[in-house]
Amino acid sequence: MTNHEFYMNLALSNAKAMKGQTDPNPLVGSVIVNENRIVGVGTHLKAGEPHAEIHAIRMADEMAKGGTIYVTLEPCSHHGRTSPCAEAIVKSGIKKAVIATLDPNPVVSGNGVKILQDAGIEVITGVLEEESRKMNEVFNKFITQKKPFITLKSGITLDGKVATHSFNSKWITSKEARHDVHHLRNENMAILVGINTTLKDDPALTTRIPNGRNPIRIVLDSTLKIPLDYQLVTDKQAETWIFTSQNYDTAKKETLENLGIKVFETSGSNSVNANDVISLLGEKGVSSVLIEGGGNINASFLENKLIDKVVLYFAPKLIGGQNAPTFLEGTGIDQMKDAVELIDTDIIRVGKDYKFTGYPSYEND
Amino acid sequence: MTNHEFYMNLALSNAKAMKGQTDPNPLVGSVIVNENRIVGVGTHLKAGEPHAEIHAIRMADEMAKGGTIYVTLEPCSHHGRTSPCAEAIVKSGIKKAVIATLDPNPVVSGNGVKILQDAGIEVITGVLEEESRKMNEVFNKFITQKKPFITLKSGITLDGKVATHSFNSKWITSKEARHDVHHLRNENMAILVGINTTLKDDPALTTRIPNGRNPIRIVLDSTLKIPLDYQLVTDKQAETWIFTSQNYDTAKKETLENLGIKVFETSGSNSVNANDVISLLGEKGVSSVLIEGGGNINASFLENKLIDKVVLYFAPKLIGGQNAPTFLEGTGIDQMKDAVELIDTDIIRVGKDYKFTGYPSYEND
Repeated sequence: MTNHEFYMNLALSNAKAMKGQTDPNPLVGSVIVNENRIVGVGTHLKAGEPHAEIHAIRMADEMAKGGTIYVTLEPCSHHGRTSPCAEAIVKSGIKKAVIATLDPNPVVSGNGVKILQDAGIEVITGVLEEESRKMNEVFNKFITQKKPFITLKSGITLDGKVATHSFNSKWITSKEARHDVHHLRNENMAILVGINTTLKDDPALTTRIPNGRNPIRIVLDSTLKIPLDYQLVTDKQAETWIFTSQNYDTAKKETLENLGIKVFETSGSNSVNANDVISLLGEKGVSSVLIEGGGNINASFLENKLIDKVVLYFAPKLIGGQNAPTFLEGTGIDQMKDAVELIDTDIIRVGKDYKFTGYPSYEND
Repeated sequence: MTNHEFYMNLALSNAKAMKGQTDPNPLVGSVIVNENRIVGVGTHLKAGEPHAEIHAIRMADEMAKGGTIYVTLEPCSHHGRTSPCAEAIVKSGIKKAVIATLDPNPVVSGNGVKILQDAGIEVITGVLEEESRKMNEVFNKFITQKKPFITLKSGITLDGKVATHSFNSKWITSKEARHDVHHLRNENMAILVGINTTLKDDPALTTRIPNGRNPIRIVLDSTLKIPLDYQLVTDKQAETWIFTSQNYDTAKKETLENLGIKVFETSGSNSVNANDVISLLGEKGVSSVLIEGGGNINASFLENKLIDKVVLYFAPKLIGGQNAPTFLEGTGIDQMKDAVELIDTDIIRVGKDYKFTGYPSYEND
């Protein structure tokens, strides 16, 4: 690890620790080094509050002068809720800037670097770039496409099943894996399930970790079958948004709305249109969605190429059964060459289970 | 790593390198150390040839005297095709023996150690014991139960599927994973498939690696449907054994036998009895079987608790489809608490794929 990587790594660690609390802003960390010691550390805590560089410059105070600033994302160049960080860096007397990634927004990308360079500051970019890019995968998609970053999560057995043939499913994964899921919920602005999962489990879909943020709870319910005494309707622990088809029960919609539930129509005549759901969520400013659906919901989003990331918790168990449901149902592909390949994959152990992550590549189309 | 572990590790490495060529004998390695240097290395190469300790003692020659012998398995105490190694060690003048595991055969376990101790040799046991035990998992089962060690192997997608809904399956796993399978074939005395896999693929079931040994090819074929022009019948690359039910075609049996194919009846009235297959194979001296069957064959062996080890190659791909076959079909369990749990699990990367290994624990029955 070079010196640059060492300091950038610290900036990344501080940035990552804020996961889930900076929406809709990206995670950003910063470190200032002068005379071979760290003189300032900063991280962006919350939208509307100072950016990472500003915190670091304030901590460094006089020692910023002549120093080197490390920042995980290109300093901003625009006058938004705060004044541009690039200008603050110039004013601080910093002489060198090391940047992990340029701004993902093509409209402003490179502008921050230009301000620095025009002021005579030496700029190095691309240090731990991939790590920084991945850390803000949600933000990067939302800022460029105005659509939420969609993570598909499922807890399955080694044979891909989510329940036995008689639909018994408690529990597939270990306590440790189920706890890990609550961290996923904490990191996502919304969680999405289908009406069948809802009817079966009457779930709360809340984040059960200390200081956990509850995501917006989204149910795809084509005819508005959700019972009025279910937790998602009554518990008020978080917002519940229901997406329906053109075939919904109008009286039920009014009842639900009177109970504080938001109901959104989609263009699907009998089933909820997945593309509409994602577009509508993007318009409402929802930048990340965790899908915890059944095999048909999962298949419908995958077929529409809406899944950005797949997280699977494999329990080292076998269920068997030709009729036991898998986490990916629907019709499926016809020829192996059309299988959706996942890239940039990883597996780690979580308790007795294995947590797989990967990113669908829709390239072979 | 202690000194003992260092030398035992070398003995284990030499032993493991012979995987597949010592049947029906176990893998054994040995190292002799004297005056702080290695003076002899030995490994068992082939049944009927000298045991590991004998090779090591021959290499050490005069330097064995006063030395320490490391051996991965308790030296034998019986007069078999070779004279007892324990006696050879005593004769060599070795003063100390470090042993990984005792003989798994309860009838003779401890006898070798006793011979050594009675001759005044200091004996230490249990150094890298678990590694040695696992290395000979096949031998350990066969010697104690007279039944083959059964490995279930499957190449699957992340959603547990082995083909699309239209039964297209070429290819699920990467070239690297398929190459790895040939090593599995090389290590097993027999390979077992069902008649459906056979009819679909007309497979050769040979080991396609340099110097690979071809396993005995076993087909479960309840009515003897196998076509006479199929590779398994005609190619003579390895023996083909067919196990059938009581419902077989007697004329076809005679035809097959005239072509050099062995046909075995099992007690199943309409389907092949899996327990009979395993018992018969044990009687014939087959110590290891690799099952490369479809979902129903796999389920039938698992339900009968006949699977000792599971090896799954996960391709990072998604197929989907309610009707796409998974690697474990049949009826499956009814309640999650009855799922077969796999213990001592591991995952490694093989090319783009992940290779999972685990051992079914049938304990929750």
